[in-house]
Amino acid sequence: MRFGFFDDLHLEYVITRPDTPLPWINYLGTESYFGIISNTAGGYSFYKDARLRRLIRFRYNNAPLDGNGRYVYLRDDDAAQPDFWSPTWQPTRTPLDAYTCRHGLGYTRIASQRKGITCETTYFVPLGQDLEVWDVHLTNQRGTAANLSLFSAVEFCLWDAFDDANNFQRNYSIGEVEVVDGVIYHKSEYRERRDHFAYFACSEPLAGYDTQREDFLGPYRGWDAPAAVEEGKARQSLALGWQPMGSHHVRLHLEPGESKRVIFVLGYHENPENDKFDPAGTQTINKKTVLPVIRRFLQPDVVSQALADIQQYWRNLLQGMQVDTPNEHANRMINIWNVYQLMVTFNFSRSSSYFESGVGRGMGFRDSAQDLLGFVQLDAQRARQRILDLAATQMASGGAYHQYQPLTKRGNHDVGSNFNDDPLWLVLAVTAYLKESGDWSILQEQVPFDLEHGSEDSLLAHMERSLNYTQERLGPHGLPLIGRADWNDCLNLNCFSDKPGQSFQTTTNREGKVAESVFIGGLFVLAAAEMEAVYDRLGLTAKAAELAAQRVNMRAVLNTAGWDGSWFRRAYDHFGNPLGSQECTEGQIFVEPQGMCVMAGVGLEDGRAESALNAVREHLGTPHGVVVLWPAFKQYYLHIGEISSYPPGYKENGSVFCHTNPWIQIAEARLGRGERALDYYLRINPSAREEISEVHRCEPYAYAQMIAGKEAVKPGEAKNSWLTGTAAWSYVAVTQWILGIRPTFDGLKIAPVVPEDWTAFDVQRTFRGVRYFIHVERVGAGNAVRLEVEGAPVEGDVVGIPSGGQTEVRVRAYLGTA
Amino acid sequence: MRFGFFDDLHLEYVITRPDTPLPWINYLGTESYFGIISNTAGGYSFYKDARLRRLIRFRYNNAPLDGNGRYVYLRDDDAAQPDFWSPTWQPTRTPLDAYTCRHGLGYTRIASQRKGITCETTYFVPLGQDLEVWDVHLTNQRGTAANLSLFSAVEFCLWDAFDDANNFQRNYSIGEVEVVDGVIYHKSEYRERRDHFAYFACSEPLAGYDTQREDFLGPYRGWDAPAAVEEGKARQSLALGWQPMGSHHVRLHLEPGESKRVIFVLGYHENPENDKFDPAGTQTINKKTVLPVIRRFLQPDVVSQALADIQQYWRNLLQGMQVDTPNEHANRMINIWNVYQLMVTFNFSRSSSYFESGVGRGMGFRDSAQDLLGFVQLDAQRARQRILDLAATQMASGGAYHQYQPLTKRGNHDVGSNFNDDPLWLVLAVTAYLKESGDWSILQEQVPFDLEHGSEDSLLAHMERSLNYTQERLGPHGLPLIGRADWNDCLNLNCFSDKPGQSFQTTTNREGKVAESVFIGGLFVLAAAEMEAVYDRLGLTAKAAELAAQRVNMRAVLNTAGWDGSWFRRAYDHFGNPLGSQECTEGQIFVEPQGMCVMAGVGLEDGRAESALNAVREHLGTPHGVVVLWPAFKQYYLHIGEISSYPPGYKENGSVFCHTNPWIQIAEARLGRGERALDYYLRINPSAREEISEVHRCEPYAYAQMIAGKEAVKPGEAKNSWLTGTAAWSYVAVTQWILGIRPTFDGLKIAPVVPEDWTAFDVQRTFRGVRYFIHVERVGAGNAVRLEVEGAPVEGDVVGIPSGGQTEVRVRAYLGTA
Repeated sequence: MRFGFFDDLHLEYVITRPDTPLPWINYLGTESYFGIISNTAGGYSFYKDARLRRLIRFRYNNAPLDGNGRYVYLRDDDAAQPDFWSPTWQPTRTPLDAYTCRHGLGYTRIASQRKGITCETTYFVPLGQDLEVWDVHLTNQRGTAANLSLFSAVEFCLWDAFDDANNFQRNYSIGEVEVVDGVIYHKSEYRERRDHFAYFACSEPLAGYDTQREDFLGPYRGWDAPAAVEEGKARQSLALGWQPMGSHHVRLHLEPGESKRVIFVLGYHENPENDKFDPAGTQTINKKTVLPVIRRFLQPDVVSQALADIQQYWRNLLQGMQVDTPNEHANRMINIWNVYQLMVTFNFSRSSSYFESGVGRGMGFRDSAQDLLGFVQLDAQRARQRILDLAATQMASGGAYHQYQPLTKRGNHDVGSNFNDDPLWLVLAVTAYLKESGDWSILQEQVPFDLEHGSEDSLLAHMERSLNYTQERLGPHGLPLIGRADWNDCLNLNCFSDKPGQSFQTTTNREGKVAESVFIGGLFVLAAAEMEAVYDRLGLTAKAAELAAQRVNMRAVLNTAGWDGSWFRRAYDHFGNPLGSQECTEGQIFVEPQGMCVMAGVGLEDGRAESALNAVREHLGTPHGVVVLWPAFKQYYLHIGEISSYPPGYKENGSVFCHTNPWIQIAEARLGRGERALDYYLRINPSAREEISEVHRCEPYAYAQMIAGKEAVKPGEAKNSWLTGTAAWSYVAVTQWILGIRPTFDGLKIAPVVPEDWTAFDVQRTFRGVRYFIHVERVGAGNAVRLEVEGAPVEGDVVGIPSGGQTEVRVRAYLGTA
Repeated sequence: MRFGFFDDLHLEYVITRPDTPLPWINYLGTESYFGIISNTAGGYSFYKDARLRRLIRFRYNNAPLDGNGRYVYLRDDDAAQPDFWSPTWQPTRTPLDAYTCRHGLGYTRIASQRKGITCETTYFVPLGQDLEVWDVHLTNQRGTAANLSLFSAVEFCLWDAFDDANNFQRNYSIGEVEVVDGVIYHKSEYRERRDHFAYFACSEPLAGYDTQREDFLGPYRGWDAPAAVEEGKARQSLALGWQPMGSHHVRLHLEPGESKRVIFVLGYHENPENDKFDPAGTQTINKKTVLPVIRRFLQPDVVSQALADIQQYWRNLLQGMQVDTPNEHANRMINIWNVYQLMVTFNFSRSSSYFESGVGRGMGFRDSAQDLLGFVQLDAQRARQRILDLAATQMASGGAYHQYQPLTKRGNHDVGSNFNDDPLWLVLAVTAYLKESGDWSILQEQVPFDLEHGSEDSLLAHMERSLNYTQERLGPHGLPLIGRADWNDCLNLNCFSDKPGQSFQTTTNREGKVAESVFIGGLFVLAAAEMEAVYDRLGLTAKAAELAAQRVNMRAVLNTAGWDGSWFRRAYDHFGNPLGSQECTEGQIFVEPQGMCVMAGVGLEDGRAESALNAVREHLGTPHGVVVLWPAFKQYYLHIGEISSYPPGYKENGSVFCHTNPWIQIAEARLGRGERALDYYLRINPSAREEISEVHRCEPYAYAQMIAGKEAVKPGEAKNSWLTGTAAWSYVAVTQWILGIRPTFDGLKIAPVVPEDWTAFDVQRTFRGVRYFIHVERVGAGNAVRLEVEGAPVEGDVVGIPSGGQTEVRVRAYLGTA
């Protein structure tokens, strides 16, 4: 069952009924002012930090769901009895005669009709601005004139979202606003240490306004039936304390067929610390610099152009790679939605979604490093800066802070370090950047450790320490010690947490000299191979050879202690017992080491890889994707930790933890099995799951972190959509390993591993400033490739960078052996 | 305007309409299971800790207000169209034909009638139990039979209230329940580290049940219109993940005039860590020990008796002191509500109310020490333990952790120490305990510093260090250094916080060797005098003399550097400039030093006290009480801190900060001005303010922390009711200083300072196990007292402790000079 459809031409998903299984959200903003918005206009906005600079109050997990947002009410002033509704359905949830929500890239447009009045509102954040626009178009489709009242409504968060939801003995006394010339200024705490305020403006003359929630709603009433709207009469309330909000009341007369446009602007503004007030010495906001911005974005032409600009911005970004394959779901995700999600994960890391409250987590070291694997293709400059920011939180030991704060860019001491895979991801992020950009200068950038002045060393040295960090922490079998956890934050083999409320990760009770990770072993082999290639290219052959020896060593260990007979083991616990082994009754096989080892090339030559992947298919494969482990843990194990805290089939305990699925896709591609790789790809592809939206429940245009596994009560139900490493890894898997268009240090490799029944596909890709037009056609079975560049045959499968200013390259690839 | 009335006979406040200006709450529980409940059944419960063991989900500051709680729905199953309502008004808010809410001591009873169906529900926590009972009585007042559906509904909090409101990527996957024999068990995280679960049981056979919120409510619906209730049909939903809840569905047939009683029990239960499951090895809750409890409290007779027991418990407690004075508001608060609030503040400190979310704060050192000043009279044993707990968080320096955690009893490192008044309050708490109990053994209790094993010393030594702490920290004028703040947490003279999000208190940027507090000076004089009396009684005359010298010294400083000419100054800031001086343009006069210095006896003999109190009356007196300072700060001052962060007239910046008002009442009593003392007492007495409930807005039966001051936008509006030191101090002021019935080391002092027109009053008080019947009658003007004990005249104004097993003492006091 669907709740809408893809409009690929307009780069939109169109939702055709408001009561989606869960609120289906979109993201607004590109640089510093961001927001989440649901298909019924719920959500909130913030400046840079979802906790510390939140503009709109949002109560997560409320009933009704998703009951705060960017609301507009319409009221029929001609009706005998009070008749009002929400043209975005929420919060009145009045039945509408027509409804669509178009989630586009960087904007959302919600259109509806009721009793002959159509209303279409477009929400977006203009490029380069710290504000959002609500562009409302009203049309009277009746045969008679209509007198309408239009009310806007937004509830202000008192900036710090944590404090806002907890410290009422203070908060109920500090709310402050100004209303001047119809502009509502929210200035709570501006009187003291804040240099910023919010404003909410309207393009039309006002019949009235409200800024105090209780006055607008009436006592004990909700957003579904504000008294001011019911009566058609704003209260002119001026908030001091309690719950400041903003509402404009506009009266409109519409002749039959007549349309009117009303623009609302909600924004964030900072004043110089020493020029906050005007006149100086008062407590009145200095509006000198904000008023020009407000005036500008209340102009219809400016708004129309700003929306066109954001659409163009996204069309430009998408142009980086466009494909035309036999599979529409692959096309749609590669060409539009997966790229969009790459940007969202880059901007938001794991902070703010319908499932991430924006209060708890900063930027993850491992998370952001992996997000870069896909993002490097979108914006190499921003990727470069992110790499340097990440590296600067690395410690002198080579270890990494597990998280850092986006505002200060400082490592988070509460969470600390000792997630022993973390440093290796930096190596992969840097080499992905090198391959994409060819910018080798980054390796010589001087970067401090733990932001400590004077500790600077080259980024190359940071990468070396990352690899050394693993080598200096090998366990009894010669495998890397796992520390607090490896990629799977919930596999806690040294923590032994036995009290509720303890962090599963940071309650470390064991020395950590025994528990080992096969997964980190595979990751080390992968990262070492990448690093060796870097050394080779830098002429550092001795270093390359030393690292190669370590890598070969690790491979040998993976093939012995890491091998269970039919698949790779997952780890050894504190007592030296294996996890992910036929010896176990639960957790016999885990997906991560199969994916990572085969991606690293381990077992490709001796049948182990094939055996491992066949075991994955047999034990972990489900129609909804590959589950993370099997059988799920049926009880909590002190020595295994959080993974066993989840009910079987959920989260790390046996769900389809989507992030890992692309690893299996890549591994299958490395084995040359195109059917299987694509099959796995499509099982979790959101577009391919659109038909079962009533089961999947999350958005069909964004990857989710997890889909309930085969041992769950409701298999196939997705959760935690949007902010997941699945976005980057899926993009890498399908574009670089299935379609096989893969950046290398020397050029663009063309090595598709696609199903036999794919007769042809086309790819356009910009790579190092050059546009590649690639046509792949199958000439026979198998994955052998023969290339023609500009009509001339070339050796091998890599298309080099053209010299001499050539900006376009045409490539034909003949796939298979005729 | 009133919203109800006092029913003193039944020890209840009766609310007669549901839409009170704010939710008016009551507290349930006496020992470990506690709850807050509003007049429409909103609120939540917890076991010991409002953050870590919360049973019911509650979203603070929601719209509509107060929309989670302990709900019952009724549905008329005979109606042609769905007809359902909430007999407690919330959450359907259906108009009721009759409504009353009786908030009693430890219970709340909400009764209503609609369309001939009456429903009366009594909520309470039985003594000694970790559960709450909802005792529902239904009666059909119609002339025809009625078929009804009764639904219960409670939404489970996943225990940690902070996590519950933030960590959805985890929480939406961990909810788990069992439903066995009609009992709903909430066991989220029980599978791992929790040894506790909640249960929700019903006395009647069920037509159905629900445990998943979305199934019960229906998609996108709120608690105001659950689909299951609308349709009269429970879904039998079994929650796994998302939002677990509990609802029972009971079908009832009531003949005309027939009544039925349905009992619900919601409780908390712990199992032994090694016997959590039954059968062992499963994940099924072991119910062996909980089932007998559940069965017991589903029996009507048991429930009736348990309610009678809690009523008797409170009647016994109130018997400790009963007065009959010419003022009904004084009588009512002294005899009932102020005592009740003493218990609430003792149990909850500042953690959980309609304004305190239960997430942030532990037990305050200063807060709890002051709460004891009143509480010692209620339960000396519990007071004794609290004193020892507090002292154990004192540091070796004599300084105190500003807060400690109620579960671990450990000092809170995040907030730390250096609130330089803190240690002195311990001295006052101990001497109040000594006077009330006569239990001098407490002084020899061995108590550690900072809970450190081996650091134990006597409580007496702790008190000495408290006083030394002040003496070792004197500033340029010889006044005590203020540290981070003194009693006024918002007067931050060393902090200079300039960034939003910083703690005003703990962002300390100055060495703190200059800023001084006149208030602490006064507090030192008061505490030193108390301590000298202790030394004297212990025969430690040298110590007494040494301390007396310090005290005399401090008095001298207060009379010079502490004196502004007409009143006491408040402090000196980091630059050596005075606060609370005529030299200032804002904050010319503060209430705290006037109250504290005069309470300490400073200025009584030379007219300074009278001058200071006259200045209070002139500059700080308002019809709503005495404001904390004047003129309020109109802007934020970096060197003054949080106090200037509030809008003028609110909170510490010029509100009636009620806590300080009893100090002025006591000070006026010390001056012998009974009219003024009583006048101030009545200005903030909640009962006396009942008539202006539409202005006051908070409960008329509980003190609030603040009432908006004369410079506020809405003077007279109260906030932050219930959890305030006002409870203890008001009780002390009116009972010990106005009525003048004051425990001393040697006996009960009778020293009334009441208005001239009070011709007589009676007091019954239990003191050291003896019942005193005290009749005071005025025989002339002034406050001189002549005593007769058992008909015989005695010297002085102290009634000694009778010897020889006498349990009752009759006292007549003749007041004034004839």
